[in-house]
Amino acid sequence: MEKTPRSFIREILKVTEDPRIISFAGGLPNPALFPVSGIAEAARDVLEEDGERALQYATTEGYLPLREFIAGRYWRRAGMRVPAENVLITNGSQQCLDLLGKVFIDRGDPVAIERPGYLGAIQAFSLYEPRFCGVPLQSDGPDPVALSRLLESAAPPVFYGVPNFQNPSGISYSADRRREVAGILAGSNTVFIEDDAYGELRFRGEDLPPVGSYIPEQSIITGSFSKIISPGMRMGWIVAPDEVFSRLVTAKQATDLHSNYLTQRIISRFLENTRIDDHLRRIRESYRRQCDTMVRAIEAHFPPEVTVTRPDGGMFIWATLPPGLSSLDLFDLAIRENVAFVPGDPFYTGGGGSDSMRLNYSNSADDRIVEGITRLGKAMRAMIQAR
Amino acid sequence: MEKTPRSFIREILKVTEDPRIISFAGGLPNPALFPVSGIAEAARDVLEEDGERALQYATTEGYLPLREFIAGRYWRRAGMRVPAENVLITNGSQQCLDLLGKVFIDRGDPVAIERPGYLGAIQAFSLYEPRFCGVPLQSDGPDPVALSRLLESAAPPVFYGVPNFQNPSGISYSADRRREVAGILAGSNTVFIEDDAYGELRFRGEDLPPVGSYIPEQSIITGSFSKIISPGMRMGWIVAPDEVFSRLVTAKQATDLHSNYLTQRIISRFLENTRIDDHLRRIRESYRRQCDTMVRAIEAHFPPEVTVTRPDGGMFIWATLPPGLSSLDLFDLAIRENVAFVPGDPFYTGGGGSDSMRLNYSNSADDRIVEGITRLGKAMRAMIQAR
Repeated sequence: MEKTPRSFIREILKVTEDPRIISFAGGLPNPALFPVSGIAEAARDVLEEDGERALQYATTEGYLPLREFIAGRYWRRAGMRVPAENVLITNGSQQCLDLLGKVFIDRGDPVAIERPGYLGAIQAFSLYEPRFCGVPLQSDGPDPVALSRLLESAAPPVFYGVPNFQNPSGISYSADRRREVAGILAGSNTVFIEDDAYGELRFRGEDLPPVGSYIPEQSIITGSFSKIISPGMRMGWIVAPDEVFSRLVTAKQATDLHSNYLTQRIISRFLENTRIDDHLRRIRESYRRQCDTMVRAIEAHFPPEVTVTRPDGGMFIWATLPPGLSSLDLFDLAIRENVAFVPGDPFYTGGGGSDSMRLNYSNSADDRIVEGITRLGKAMRAMIQAR
Repeated sequence: MEKTPRSFIREILKVTEDPRIISFAGGLPNPALFPVSGIAEAARDVLEEDGERALQYATTEGYLPLREFIAGRYWRRAGMRVPAENVLITNGSQQCLDLLGKVFIDRGDPVAIERPGYLGAIQAFSLYEPRFCGVPLQSDGPDPVALSRLLESAAPPVFYGVPNFQNPSGISYSADRRREVAGILAGSNTVFIEDDAYGELRFRGEDLPPVGSYIPEQSIITGSFSKIISPGMRMGWIVAPDEVFSRLVTAKQATDLHSNYLTQRIISRFLENTRIDDHLRRIRESYRRQCDTMVRAIEAHFPPEVTVTRPDGGMFIWATLPPGLSSLDLFDLAIRENVAFVPGDPFYTGGGGSDSMRLNYSNSADDRIVEGITRLGKAMRAMIQAR
């Protein structure tokens, strides 16, 4: 426990509660896109038609029609055959990481993770005291040479990655790199944990196959309704092969018996009542517009020495300052201009990344995005000039 | 992980899904008492009035008005001053046990627990691989001599107990024994984890002060809405002193960010809309009637050599067979008569208890209780005669 840091992001979020601050720090979906009336209708239906059962204890694995929906969607989106029996419903995909920590990690075990990596995974796994081994993330996915060497030298039980629109970097693995990563992992003793919290948020280009589709017996996929329906309902899932699945169910039972059953029923009913693809289209259109607004503002207002990623989906842009400058120092300057972001350091297990920063565009209106980026550009110029 | 047994009870529950079986095996509240329309109304209100916020990410600690309700109720019921800031909202009280395991238990640590003890706690703590040290439960609480000796010899970091209407035994600590237990713990390095999932279900006698009210700085109390509103909504809480609280929040963040926020809002709104004491009175009246029905049926149909507890609240009766008889053997006979219960063995860390069994009365109608106890009495007589 002592080794688990409080979330740096959540501490920053406290600073940014001041409404004068334009915050690109959070990772919040745009609440204007939450299907409030659809959820209200689904809640009414479920409670009216089956209220006593919806409020009772339920099975650890989850509500079968919801698991069937999830399994069916892998088939429709990626041609992947996922049996509904191998889908476990969790409290958001963050809980997947805790359960995977319970099942896979003993103190001191090597755990492979992208550099930069998702902070929530670093936190969740830290409770089980692994030794993190970073795999550098290139513009099209994890460095294959570094990954091969790591598997050989450390044989980590798991490699955790976010192939679609990664948090924090916005980077996606290319089609080639997916195959290559799967090839490197195939036959090793390392399981790939494929966190796909953002996969449904692609607003440019074509869906690419999950890495796990090449190595299903060696792969675990986690997903979430947080980004496509509502994060406050804390509903996610994990897909795992039989033997791992059974151990995850045992861990889930011991952890909290089962996920909120009323909420499972409401989400399942909402998915029955709604054309989910129409809903997703609205989210994607909005995020594309918000992303494009931020990129255009960056092109106009950031100093040219600052480089940024141009994501095809998801919620984040990753910016890198010129060598020698620190995003922590920039954070202090930016807060004085009433604009906030997340400095890159905490995403790097083992240190580094102090020249980088994460910018969220999904939770700010277009005019605030332009104003915030303008202010941030001003702070960057001041910093570069003072160098 | 390998050391965590799948819940024996949940395996039994699968056997009892057959509707011909009268099951006293589960620990389910009576669904006829769920406030279905009140929850529906609260859900409608919350989504109509504040839907976007109710569906968004929220703080790890929980929704403040709900934490204030919980804190206020300790004051009204027990005269205990609990700051709302020290209440953490969890996914049912089962998650409290997981978080406490994370914070308090390292592999091999001694953990004191009642014998028999709550199976959910045994499971949750087992993930952290403690060495369980049983404290025999007498008719009025844990054996004080055994507890004193254990504190001296093993100095466990925690002692976990259920002072009100314990699961599985139905036993409550007497007023004197509460003071005595607190006195034994006071000044030691052992924290008392007081699981009070059933405290609101007293249907006879007067409320007794929590053990923690005597040693607040050395005590943690867990509670749950499962037995008083709905278990399917998975909503519980934990009260802890500042330093422990802060570590629990860190663990909760890493585990699943925060508890289902929509559900917190719905329960909070339900509590505002409803006279909760009227609702609790209906539950208590029903459980008293169901308990009395079972006790009377036991007096009429069980062989006199079988002894039972007579609880003042909660959901369970504990029966003990004559020496040398096994409740596991009885289980096989009883299933042939289409009646089920939970044999005592799994509640005993370190073995023992094979002559005992748990009977749940909250989830069966009165006529099914009488019929089931009659059949069980028949199976017991057959077993005693065959001896």
